[in-house]
Amino acid sequence: MGETHLARRRRLAALVAGSDADALLVTRLVNVRYLTGLDSSRAALLVPAEGPAVLATDSRYAGTAERVCPELPIVVGRLVTESLTARAAADGHRRLGFEAHDLTVEHHTTLAGQAEAELIPLGRLVEELRLVKDEEEIALLREACAITDRAFATVLPEIRAGVTERAVAIALERAMVDFGAERPAFESIVASGPNGAVPHHRPSGRELQPGDLVTMDFGALYGGYHADMTRTVAIGEPAGWQRDVYDLVHRAQRAGIGAAVPGAETKAVDAAARDVIKDAGHGGDFGHGLGHGVGLEIHEAPLMGYDKTGKLRDRVPITAEPGVYLTGRGGVRIEDTLVVRPGGPELLTTTTKDLLVL
Amino acid sequence: MGETHLARRRRLAALVAGSDADALLVTRLVNVRYLTGLDSSRAALLVPAEGPAVLATDSRYAGTAERVCPELPIVVGRLVTESLTARAAADGHRRLGFEAHDLTVEHHTTLAGQAEAELIPLGRLVEELRLVKDEEEIALLREACAITDRAFATVLPEIRAGVTERAVAIALERAMVDFGAERPAFESIVASGPNGAVPHHRPSGRELQPGDLVTMDFGALYGGYHADMTRTVAIGEPAGWQRDVYDLVHRAQRAGIGAAVPGAETKAVDAAARDVIKDAGHGGDFGHGLGHGVGLEIHEAPLMGYDKTGKLRDRVPITAEPGVYLTGRGGVRIEDTLVVRPGGPELLTTTTKDLLVL
Repeated sequence: MGETHLARRRRLAALVAGSDADALLVTRLVNVRYLTGLDSSRAALLVPAEGPAVLATDSRYAGTAERVCPELPIVVGRLVTESLTARAAADGHRRLGFEAHDLTVEHHTTLAGQAEAELIPLGRLVEELRLVKDEEEIALLREACAITDRAFATVLPEIRAGVTERAVAIALERAMVDFGAERPAFESIVASGPNGAVPHHRPSGRELQPGDLVTMDFGALYGGYHADMTRTVAIGEPAGWQRDVYDLVHRAQRAGIGAAVPGAETKAVDAAARDVIKDAGHGGDFGHGLGHGVGLEIHEAPLMGYDKTGKLRDRVPITAEPGVYLTGRGGVRIEDTLVVRPGGPELLTTTTKDLLVL
Repeated sequence: MGETHLARRRRLAALVAGSDADALLVTRLVNVRYLTGLDSSRAALLVPAEGPAVLATDSRYAGTAERVCPELPIVVGRLVTESLTARAAADGHRRLGFEAHDLTVEHHTTLAGQAEAELIPLGRLVEELRLVKDEEEIALLREACAITDRAFATVLPEIRAGVTERAVAIALERAMVDFGAERPAFESIVASGPNGAVPHHRPSGRELQPGDLVTMDFGALYGGYHADMTRTVAIGEPAGWQRDVYDLVHRAQRAGIGAAVPGAETKAVDAAARDVIKDAGHGGDFGHGLGHGVGLEIHEAPLMGYDKTGKLRDRVPITAEPGVYLTGRGGVRIEDTLVVRPGGPELLTTTTKDLLVL
């Protein structure tokens, strides 16, 4: 991945050259990882508009850093931002950009007190680059989604009346790790019966019962990339209203996915799904956005909601996850991870969306 | 817990009264949780020096907030800090303190642009309160540690040659959840043979082998509180050097625990353990601090290392985790979670520290 990371740093250097700063101090760890491949809990990266970047990390990660990014000079020590700030001044960078959405006021005060350079707050330059994924990233996300699909297929026979939500969650998470996930990409949701009305329900000791709809929202982390899938199944023959709500959410999801083309406004994609649900009289029961970008973070740009701005582009992975939540009765959510492509979305999660009756 | 949280907010209000501010805007989510009981991904709390506090959270958590802290006025909406900043001004607080170690430069700029109050950077007031735990907190931590002990006892028969590090980690994590953990308190470490020389090794596909030492560092999360325990076991009869290193680390840990009394300097506690290892000629093989506080965070104040300042106090839970790491050969770490008490430390993790030969 050395070439890939070098290419990313070059694109960032071009953005820095177009800013008010001579160099950018990258402190967000996920951004350092994107630009170097180093996954750590303490690191920072100095990216000048011209010339090579400099990485700082502590002794725990020094060996890994040398292996992962042998082409980078590495400053080893605990005070990673302080040492790179000094380095920037020594290298003649008089205007040092920083990530204002990451650096705390306290840390900024410390740096400003020691810095010989002027500190310039910059926007989300690295996040801007991260929006459109390269094919190496999409390959990792594809595998994360494949692991997620396999885990669902493996656990499906265990999903039946009498099993607790927590047991289903553990089985899904264990299967994902067995299939090669680093770990679950986020805290799994298993919401049965009335619990399905709570979008972020945490798995409880409630046992699945005949007549329940069960919503499972989970995904694998693989190579740093986050899969995100939701399926809702029925325990025993569903009632008419359950089938109706399921079909409605399924239609809304199809409409949303169909609208996810390069150039589409994110709010228009949200509206494509939302209008289906509104037209059925359930607009008030779909209280969240249609989806979000996924990548090195489980939630990243672009956000898709009725009040969001921005446009989709080729090679942007997103989720499409409409839901209908009926307090006291239950809920349905159906979610895929997909990649926006010129020829139509590439679905990365491929588990059936026909209503499974277990 | 309503009374408990009210008492905590009163103690904080007294600290605010002694500061330059009329009120404190608490934005660190773990601090909001400590002060209200609300565990969420979006919330903030306004704590005036005099008068009642005000909580803000978004609609996903509004119902939970009403249940968990019925005594608090709740402002519902996404812009939690913005709405509380406006509320502070409306309530006549002209000098609004904020958590400078949490608020980003970007967010501060936004608030400063809209605020009618002057924004005053304050230190770690809530963290200062959190250092000494109340008995409700210690009870939760005790249960987290009991779950951790039970999980180890349950998995012990499965730890043998031929099993992978990853399988051991999964078994420990699954057992913890089965015994009531919300989830693992952190990413478990299982490091066998030469991998034991890497303090933060991630569980790999390596199979345990006869002659290995195996270090397992794991813990349960329960009620928001983090257990942290490490045990090192031998697969088959250990070599002489393995027994020697084990005994050395064990003696160092006893010395560290013995020094953990109210009033002790944290660096003196670290030194008590470190000197044992130094005297045996392994000072260079123990490259991290002796331990850290645990509570609502897995790593919190006080940090115990050769360069750390501060004193232990009654009711401060800490870890004691000396280790010796021999590159290419392996390592030993032994760790307990304990509470500093006037009559001597209360061990919360109680699994044997005799060398287990499996």
